[in-house]
Amino acid sequence: MSRSGHLLIACPDQPGIVARVTGALFSCGANITESAQHSTDPTGGLFFMRVAFHMPALQIEALTTSLNELAAVWQMQVRLSWPDRPKRAAIFLSRESHCLLELLWQHQTGEIGAQIPIVISNHADHGETVRRMGYAFTHVPVSKDRKQDAEQQQLALLQDVDFIVLARYMQILSPYFIAAFGKPIINIHHSFLPAFVGARPYERAYERGVKIIGATAHYVTADLDAGPIIEQDIARVAHSNSVTDLKAIGRQIERSVLARAVRWHIEDRVIVHDNRTIVF
Amino acid sequence: MSRSGHLLIACPDQPGIVARVTGALFSCGANITESAQHSTDPTGGLFFMRVAFHMPALQIEALTTSLNELAAVWQMQVRLSWPDRPKRAAIFLSRESHCLLELLWQHQTGEIGAQIPIVISNHADHGETVRRMGYAFTHVPVSKDRKQDAEQQQLALLQDVDFIVLARYMQILSPYFIAAFGKPIINIHHSFLPAFVGARPYERAYERGVKIIGATAHYVTADLDAGPIIEQDIARVAHSNSVTDLKAIGRQIERSVLARAVRWHIEDRVIVHDNRTIVF
Amino acid sequence: MSRSGHLLIACPDQPGIVARVTGALFSCGANITESAQHSTDPTGGLFFMRVAFHMPALQIEALTTSLNELAAVWQMQVRLSWPDRPKRAAIFLSRESHCLLELLWQHQTGEIGAQIPIVISNHADHGETVRRMGYAFTHVPVSKDRKQDAEQQQLALLQDVDFIVLARYMQILSPYFIAAFGKPIINIHHSFLPAFVGARPYERAYERGVKIIGATAHYVTADLDAGPIIEQDIARVAHSNSVTDLKAIGRQIERSVLARAVRWHIEDRVIVHDNRTIVF
Amino acid sequence: MSRSGHLLIACPDQPGIVARVTGALFSCGANITESAQHSTDPTGGLFFMRVAFHMPALQIEALTTSLNELAAVWQMQVRLSWPDRPKRAAIFLSRESHCLLELLWQHQTGEIGAQIPIVISNHADHGETVRRMGYAFTHVPVSKDRKQDAEQQQLALLQDVDFIVLARYMQILSPYFIAAFGKPIINIHHSFLPAFVGARPYERAYERGVKIIGATAHYVTADLDAGPIIEQDIARVAHSNSVTDLKAIGRQIERSVLARAVRWHIEDRVIVHDNRTIVF
Repeated sequence: MSRSGHLLIACPDQPGIVARVTGALFSCGANITESAQHSTDPTGGLFFMRVAFHMPALQIEALTTSLNELAAVWQMQVRLSWPDRPKRAAIFLSRESHCLLELLWQHQTGEIGAQIPIVISNHADHGETVRRMGYAFTHVPVSKDRKQDAEQQQLALLQDVDFIVLARYMQILSPYFIAAFGKPIINIHHSFLPAFVGARPYERAYERGVKIIGATAHYVTADLDAGPIIEQDIARVAHSNSVTDLKAIGRQIERSVLARAVRWHIEDRVIVHDNRTIVF
Repeated sequence: MSRSGHLLIACPDQPGIVARVTGALFSCGANITESAQHSTDPTGGLFFMRVAFHMPALQIEALTTSLNELAAVWQMQVRLSWPDRPKRAAIFLSRESHCLLELLWQHQTGEIGAQIPIVISNHADHGETVRRMGYAFTHVPVSKDRKQDAEQQQLALLQDVDFIVLARYMQILSPYFIAAFGKPIINIHHSFLPAFVGARPYERAYERGVKIIGATAHYVTADLDAGPIIEQDIARVAHSNSVTDLKAIGRQIERSVLARAVRWHIEDRVIVHDNRTIVF
Repeated sequence: MSRSGHLLIACPDQPGIVARVTGALFSCGANITESAQHSTDPTGGLFFMRVAFHMPALQIEALTTSLNELAAVWQMQVRLSWPDRPKRAAIFLSRESHCLLELLWQHQTGEIGAQIPIVISNHADHGETVRRMGYAFTHVPVSKDRKQDAEQQQLALLQDVDFIVLARYMQILSPYFIAAFGKPIINIHHSFLPAFVGARPYERAYERGVKIIGATAHYVTADLDAGPIIEQDIARVAHSNSVTDLKAIGRQIERSVLARAVRWHIEDRVIVHDNRTIVF
Repeated sequence: MSRSGHLLIACPDQPGIVARVTGALFSCGANITESAQHSTDPTGGLFFMRVAFHMPALQIEALTTSLNELAAVWQMQVRLSWPDRPKRAAIFLSRESHCLLELLWQHQTGEIGAQIPIVISNHADHGETVRRMGYAFTHVPVSKDRKQDAEQQQLALLQDVDFIVLARYMQILSPYFIAAFGKPIINIHHSFLPAFVGARPYERAYERGVKIIGATAHYVTADLDAGPIIEQDIARVAHSNSVTDLKAIGRQIERSVLARAVRWHIEDRVIVHDNRTIVF
């Protein structure tokens, strides 16, 4: 019986790494279907690699052993991931549903290959739509003075979840929540970061008179809108576009940028290093 | 004998403006070849209009009189411009010549329909190239403690000039210079403003890990990189691109963005209002 | 009581048209909120204009009379349209639902301001989804030898409809159907026309090794994929993309291109002339 | 003493290839700085790989021997290329100089790392400009009835040349010439292929009413405009753009697309397979 796998490695760069890693895969009968690598600097930098492969299920233990040996010798971080055990995502939203709907839709057409056990919102608005589409929805109201309670309630719902997608969730997660969850959180920010960090980016883009607006998907860190950027995209705007127009144009960018970022995360294409991402 | 003209107007919006302005043009035998308008808000906002037309030269005085009458009644700002009297541009640069060369090249193919009586640089590097292409070049060194002298020397060279293009001129113009020159100055900033205002934008874009870089052409004001944006454009970059790569990719964007902005300025397509531009 | 209106005119170009048309609007108390014009050639060409305006409902008859007078004198085609009487659209699809879903979704958020009284498909697949979203769905099977019957059945369903959107409807409409319907039909073709007219465009794009794929929204004429183009867009692809990848990437382009074209049609922004479109 | 090298391989896909090739490089002291691979189909398809590396000059012979051994066993095509021996390009043009100027300019800034021993044109127009920039220029007139003579004269000038760039050369090369030259020829076609093959593409794009125009760089084969596509790009156009406008907009695309294609060819990034290109 054969399985598909993704291997991600990171280590100090030095001659022979590719030969050794691909040698280990070959010895265990793996056939490489996709491979990409990046070196921050061939002399003394860091080396990153992603390999997609098929291999006999029986050999998986042998591969793990080989890779652990390499890891020990080469100060290598190794991550193995198996697409037949899909990641589990929670989606958070507030009042605007376009990003959520895009994700659910791409989920239903198979383009987003995760499980989505739960959708959480601080508003009840979209509960019926979400449930009718066949997903679980939980309304967790967030009030200013009881935010901590809300976060506890959210955390209790996330025990089985591998990552969170903030699909236009308009509450700032506390550093406590981020640390307690301890797994990746992907946010869509409705501007071309680092321009217009924080609130009301379309209003501020309008005031500044920019000719292009954008959206940014990034991993959440304790610093607001300052985490590693996964993907960005833009659209042209003109003097004739009002703030309302910018928001409508922006919605199209936000949902496609977020969906791409989520898909890449699911396919183990994203490595974070030094607050930047390598997207293989 | 017939002449081409450009008419720009700005006034409080109210019914009948277009009818009156086009009526005045019609009475003077003008044939409208291009027309565009913009209203910030149809009730109580501002109205902007650009008309390109051909008309008999003999009627120009009559048109001017009609427009002045309208202007007095409707609180209208009126600007008439005649393409057969081309604007005169001075180009400033420092060490990088790609923006200058693009402008000179488009000038030679007729795409940039201005006169370019002078090129000024704080470095002597490109003097020979510029002169060989048939343009006047003046080297005005700028040292930190004698910047004022340099600016005086520049101003003396600019008496016959209608606007300045800063084609990667790496000195900050003093508020004194800007006020003393008193006419439009177009700058190319090598980032997607308002991201990365100020120095070293490509280095900072690299550090922030953006997936898209850009360039911005804007009118210069006393606030650094905060003047009205005329045009912006972008290019995708990847984790594999070094700062050197970003600079090379960026050069292509800078020169095309600046050339478009200069062309639009020359064709009287740009109106500044409230630190934003209307580009007709 | 005030109403919004759209005025479209087409006539031989000559001096004074804009003055006269805007004069007629002004006399009837109309306030112009948007205006655009195009001339194929200022001397002896055709002139096109779109004006959006607000005006007192009481004056509508007077405006119609004025415009009819102008039309008679100036060989002018005049079209008046009132957004408060929304157009009625029928959407056709086959097995792929992404274009339909995008339209229904934008309809629900108000971005597509038409009524959608009916969705018709030659397959039953998406009936339940469509009905659950609150729209009428009719399954009209089309077999090769009884296509005429199917078209009769479709026509009977379309009596109250102003235009048809072919949202990936994979049957070719007969010239008879097109003539019998006699109103606009918008199609989305899954290639960058005129490249890859006809069947299997993604397969052929893959075989040709193009680096960019596209989609085209156009009005349907009796000539396959040769009608006036309303909108096109593209996405970059690479050697690593399979035909399946091209189709997935293409779906994103198809749905946004079609939605833009439908929106522009609804807003009376599109004029057809000489098998080309003017999009104001 | 160390040297930079590029290795390109093509062979039937099977497990272990990457391990063996990178093993051979490692044994000869090579440090891989860039690596990319592509498989048309992991089971029974073809495998392609490009590796950029540094290695001790002394070991080059050993590497060549190792690779030849692998090539024999694995039916592998192997190409080794050394950037310190730059390729030699001839540039052909007719009346339009924008593509030529872009190439010469990027050559002078070091972005195009080839030698350019000769520029050939069927018109004398640009001879002076080219020579003043420091390049050799030969005028080879081409008349309909003496085309063969002209091609003989051209071939005599090309004996030391590795590839030809047709930078808007408006003559069709004969199959004889293509075969006799026997090395790569890169052409820029001024349309988005396969749309508008052949003459007058901008005129035909205008007539068809497309909303986007493009340019295509491809390797020349005996079939007109049907060779493997290296790169394409596009720009939006509107109903207001005349054919002259399309040509002006198109020139910007043509020169940047051609320059990218030439750069990738020089850097050994392009592999042709089955009339398609893999661009690493």
